[in-house]
Amino acid sequence: MQSLVDAVFYWSDLFGTAVFAFSGVLVAGRLRMDGFGVIVLAAVTAIGGGTIRDLIIGAEQVFWVADPTYLWVILATALLGQYIARLPRRLPWYILPLADAFGLALFTVIGTEKALAHGTSGMVAVVMGVITGVAGGMIRDVLAREVPMVLQREIYATACILGGILYTGTLALGVTPLLATLAGMLGTFVLRVAAIRWHLSLPAFSLGR
Amino acid sequence: MQSLVDAVFYWSDLFGTAVFAFSGVLVAGRLRMDGFGVIVLAAVTAIGGGTIRDLIIGAEQVFWVADPTYLWVILATALLGQYIARLPRRLPWYILPLADAFGLALFTVIGTEKALAHGTSGMVAVVMGVITGVAGGMIRDVLAREVPMVLQREIYATACILGGILYTGTLALGVTPLLATLAGMLGTFVLRVAAIRWHLSLPAFSLGR
Amino acid sequence: MQSLVDAVFYWSDLFGTAVFAFSGVLVAGRLRMDGFGVIVLAAVTAIGGGTIRDLIIGAEQVFWVADPTYLWVILATALLGQYIARLPRRLPWYILPLADAFGLALFTVIGTEKALAHGTSGMVAVVMGVITGVAGGMIRDVLAREVPMVLQREIYATACILGGILYTGTLALGVTPLLATLAGMLGTFVLRVAAIRWHLSLPAFSLGR
Repeated sequence: MQSLVDAVFYWSDLFGTAVFAFSGVLVAGRLRMDGFGVIVLAAVTAIGGGTIRDLIIGAEQVFWVADPTYLWVILATALLGQYIARLPRRLPWYILPLADAFGLALFTVIGTEKALAHGTSGMVAVVMGVITGVAGGMIRDVLAREVPMVLQREIYATACILGGILYTGTLALGVTPLLATLAGMLGTFVLRVAAIRWHLSLPAFSLGR
Repeated sequence: MQSLVDAVFYWSDLFGTAVFAFSGVLVAGRLRMDGFGVIVLAAVTAIGGGTIRDLIIGAEQVFWVADPTYLWVILATALLGQYIARLPRRLPWYILPLADAFGLALFTVIGTEKALAHGTSGMVAVVMGVITGVAGGMIRDVLAREVPMVLQREIYATACILGGILYTGTLALGVTPLLATLAGMLGTFVLRVAAIRWHLSLPAFSLGR
Repeated sequence: MQSLVDAVFYWSDLFGTAVFAFSGVLVAGRLRMDGFGVIVLAAVTAIGGGTIRDLIIGAEQVFWVADPTYLWVILATALLGQYIARLPRRLPWYILPLADAFGLALFTVIGTEKALAHGTSGMVAVVMGVITGVAGGMIRDVLAREVPMVLQREIYATACILGGILYTGTLALGVTPLLATLAGMLGTFVLRVAAIRWHLSLPAFSLGR
């Protein structure tokens, strides 16, 4: 049973990696990058956040150094993604945002969990969940010379904060790790999808210029 | 006595964290970021430099993972700062630059000291002081899509270099750590304040374009 | 004999550091940075990639913390380079690209080798070679507020990939480390020089905007 749960999470993690990598492929295509640029943007988007997390919490090994499967998934996504992105549109428009929301939910909880497993406080663990979820996309946007969208647009990182608090909080209340994981993921996923569906956004803080 | 000195430094460190975080809040306000963007810019400005320092010198734990108080100070500054920044101006104009110069002086010496405590050479320690003082502001500017001001404007990082050399040098000459700290902080603070007061700047190196 | 080979590599490494630092000096000059900005751009270009590599593979110490000679080379290059860059042109145009290609080849193989020595898989080692070769230049370009040229222009990172694969592959086939090093360096160098000479570039991946 546990090994089944582990397998589901591992494959979901690889799926989330591919979805995040594909968002890097799309940005690279808008900027007319070459094949190497596509791979770099796919990679920083998919594993940038988790890498920063692993360095800061002092993991024994960065996760993709320990298991290069992530790199192969990114390489395959970068190569196949260039063709898929040029196909005449066949998928309904909401598939990609839904997949991205799923990846965000999963990455957030994975990051929060890994931080707690390394003995951090709950506050730090929530921050690590957010970093895992959004830092890769921020680096992608900086490389593309854009102000990271996550700092300006609709609710995205806020969904990570909610998910991380739900995971940490329910765990502290004594529920099983699996239930806490589902609660954290559901919180992130539902808030993110609601933000997309009803165009929710946080108010901007403006000081004029 | 030592515990009093330690307490003074710890509270000064938190004060410097708040001042640096507030400079991130101001940049976020100019860019019309949302609440999450305000927190991110406050955080990278306040703890970005120290985080890079701790990773490079191989500290056992990044300082804010070991003590999440820094994160709470940043969160409070990001929330309160949005209101304070919009208040009709009441403080004299020079308060914020003075507070920033104080934070810069403290961060520089803390960074230099921590590097030496990890056994680095004096050269590396001075570099770590500079990184602690200016790297956070550089990341803030990159996220705001600006060429980091510290690379172009008046004397800022140079004040860190002076402070780091004074700290390392006086310590090597055999003065007590407290005196070396005061010498290093004073060097950074005075040079920085003088640069603000008399608009001192380094000559630009220009190759045309 | 081994100590001679080691000495040749060490001095070559310092030479590559100076060449990469000089490319940072040139970018700083185009942006009219001050003296500190020149040093920072020289430093991130020369040691940025190796620093990220050492953090990710979990080296005991970042290489320039262990041996500050690299910092002195960068400091000297930043100071002397400002004068050299303003001299009326005397060197043939191809000297600098050739020196850069040599530095790229050396950095790539050093990065790949160090990763393998830390027990990574071949895939991760090749990635580390690429990071060592190109990440510093990418940070330089981000600080200069440009889309990193390596993501858009002619074959540069691709030469690192080839060199890393040649080094890892020949080593796996049982040749001596020295021969593998020469194979990897030659692959990177020849492909890079050919790309410069015949203006080779990868096709751009464009999705419109």
